[in-house]
Amino acid sequence: MKTLEVDLGHRSYPIHIGSQLLSNSDLLKPHIQGKSVVIVTNETVAPLYLGTLKTQLSNYRCDSIVLKDGEAHKNLETLNTIYTRLLEQRYDRKTTLIALGGGVVGDIAGYAAASYQRGIPFIQIPTTLLAQVDSSVGGKTAVNHPLGKNMIGAFYQPQCVLADTEVLKTLPPRELAAGLAEVIKYGLLGDREFLLWVKDNMDALKDCDNATLTTAIERSCQMKAEIVAADEREGGQRALLNLGHTFGHAIETEMGYGEWLHGEAVGAGMVMAAEMSRACGWIKQEDLDLAKEVIAAADLPTQPPSKMTPDTFLQHMARDKKVIDGSLRLVLLKALGHAVVTADFDQAALMATLERE
Amino acid sequence: MKTLEVDLGHRSYPIHIGSQLLSNSDLLKPHIQGKSVVIVTNETVAPLYLGTLKTQLSNYRCDSIVLKDGEAHKNLETLNTIYTRLLEQRYDRKTTLIALGGGVVGDIAGYAAASYQRGIPFIQIPTTLLAQVDSSVGGKTAVNHPLGKNMIGAFYQPQCVLADTEVLKTLPPRELAAGLAEVIKYGLLGDREFLLWVKDNMDALKDCDNATLTTAIERSCQMKAEIVAADEREGGQRALLNLGHTFGHAIETEMGYGEWLHGEAVGAGMVMAAEMSRACGWIKQEDLDLAKEVIAAADLPTQPPSKMTPDTFLQHMARDKKVIDGSLRLVLLKALGHAVVTADFDQAALMATLERE
Repeated sequence: MKTLEVDLGHRSYPIHIGSQLLSNSDLLKPHIQGKSVVIVTNETVAPLYLGTLKTQLSNYRCDSIVLKDGEAHKNLETLNTIYTRLLEQRYDRKTTLIALGGGVVGDIAGYAAASYQRGIPFIQIPTTLLAQVDSSVGGKTAVNHPLGKNMIGAFYQPQCVLADTEVLKTLPPRELAAGLAEVIKYGLLGDREFLLWVKDNMDALKDCDNATLTTAIERSCQMKAEIVAADEREGGQRALLNLGHTFGHAIETEMGYGEWLHGEAVGAGMVMAAEMSRACGWIKQEDLDLAKEVIAAADLPTQPPSKMTPDTFLQHMARDKKVIDGSLRLVLLKALGHAVVTADFDQAALMATLERE
Repeated sequence: MKTLEVDLGHRSYPIHIGSQLLSNSDLLKPHIQGKSVVIVTNETVAPLYLGTLKTQLSNYRCDSIVLKDGEAHKNLETLNTIYTRLLEQRYDRKTTLIALGGGVVGDIAGYAAASYQRGIPFIQIPTTLLAQVDSSVGGKTAVNHPLGKNMIGAFYQPQCVLADTEVLKTLPPRELAAGLAEVIKYGLLGDREFLLWVKDNMDALKDCDNATLTTAIERSCQMKAEIVAADEREGGQRALLNLGHTFGHAIETEMGYGEWLHGEAVGAGMVMAAEMSRACGWIKQEDLDLAKEVIAAADLPTQPPSKMTPDTFLQHMARDKKVIDGSLRLVLLKALGHAVVTADFDQAALMATLERE
């Protein structure tokens, strides 16, 4: 087992990565303060892992809330069903909420924990590769609004994160690929060597080889933890983590949440960011080709859905959280392995990218 | 003008108290970072003060959201109308939200600011005495859930607070009295001298004498700011501010939000806390009589509505945020001017108080 520490002063917390962590109650217990635990999960994950987790928690008052599966349910209505259940069962503010599931479960349970009685303790047990390398680290919690993704939320840190590589073996290949999009992202934005390692080890990653996955998750979490520690509330550097996400969010919003997986939209979005960086003259054609090659090798889409016009892109992008005082900032590549957040780009390069010329 | 500083490290902020502050734009401008401001107010306050405030903000993109008046609208639905308006008008995360109104407007606008795009800057301009001495100070924001008051919220600090005594002159007498309940609370919980000062100056306070109000607000905010600075997230001492509130919240919840004003419920709740402290043998009969006398002099109720049975009280109190691992903690008086938070009380004294024997 590997353990990383996310360094945020008195809100620091550990990330444990390895196999069979879900059946090791010694990892959880130091992080549960009160006598009550409520597990938030979904109807896909519950039959697979809820029983195992509950067995570890037999010394606590323990309930579970099973949500419908999918991004389409990450909204205020679902959030309200969690509040109602907690209040009906009279769970107090020392209750620990555990998120057992993918990014949607983590985001919504995390935001429920942030806002229930103005904040209760919270533990993340991510069960998808996407959640293990991305959404479970860094304290971003949120739900969607019909007018935009993740528009309602909080920065709220968990007590700890358990990333069990064993549970990834039951993931559908499409979900695994979506997680690999974020792994590739870390290579693209800050570590060319790691990008090449991912390319060379793509088959082992897709086959769910335990050791290869552990290395990939560890390096990804490490990079994310460093960036988050330097910039918890997204003043500057943290926005680098949104490489491919401004284009990707536009795709997700236009298609309706859940139609394209988040990682798939990010895959296409990263290709667009690389294409635009090429159009700006910042990276070479061979860099763009390599980025596309790795993304394609992970079985991810390398272009947006054909129904997306430049207008639909621009409409959604105007609502992006990185828009400040009306000016759009994008995460682009100055080199393969070196991303920047900038509003200083050639508007023609953006239009060429959106028009897919 | 008096200025207090709430000391919370890098989240410290000033409270300005005095008359005619609303028409002094120099107080606001240093606290607005971006180019956009959205004022959240209600249909009662808007005709009186929205115009004056907007005049001060002519250099900014400035919109206003006018809510229906009353605690009954402090819920997730109203919150969602704020999110929708902000998103429709594409307000970004540098937008400053200004709460212009009483405690309900401050709580809901504050929570909207805490949660919109995971947090945007926020300024409080409280227009009721209650909000000036209580809810605008300390960073508690929340909305109600049908199963409990303030059950969904965040600790979120404003950039600054403007308490303009001039605006209190348009308050209905019942609202002014409700504010005096919290002023009396500070005397009861921590400053016997101040309690006697309030008793002696009750007529001037009810007549809205500017200088007397300024003194009362300043001392109240000072006591609250000290308690909040020592315990921002309500681990211990901060719960003292809930003197009378556990009984009071039960009254508000049972009667339906808005039927009894918050301060009226707190008035009756403080008498109950004093009666229970007397039943525990902690304060003398003459202390109880003095507490009742001051509360009655402010034209506040000194007993709960007759329909409240011990059972209805206990049911609502079991959901109180001060319940920890199933045990009820109450704020009681060890002496007049000295409150404690305790779960160590005579159950018979509680029942006698609830049964109104």
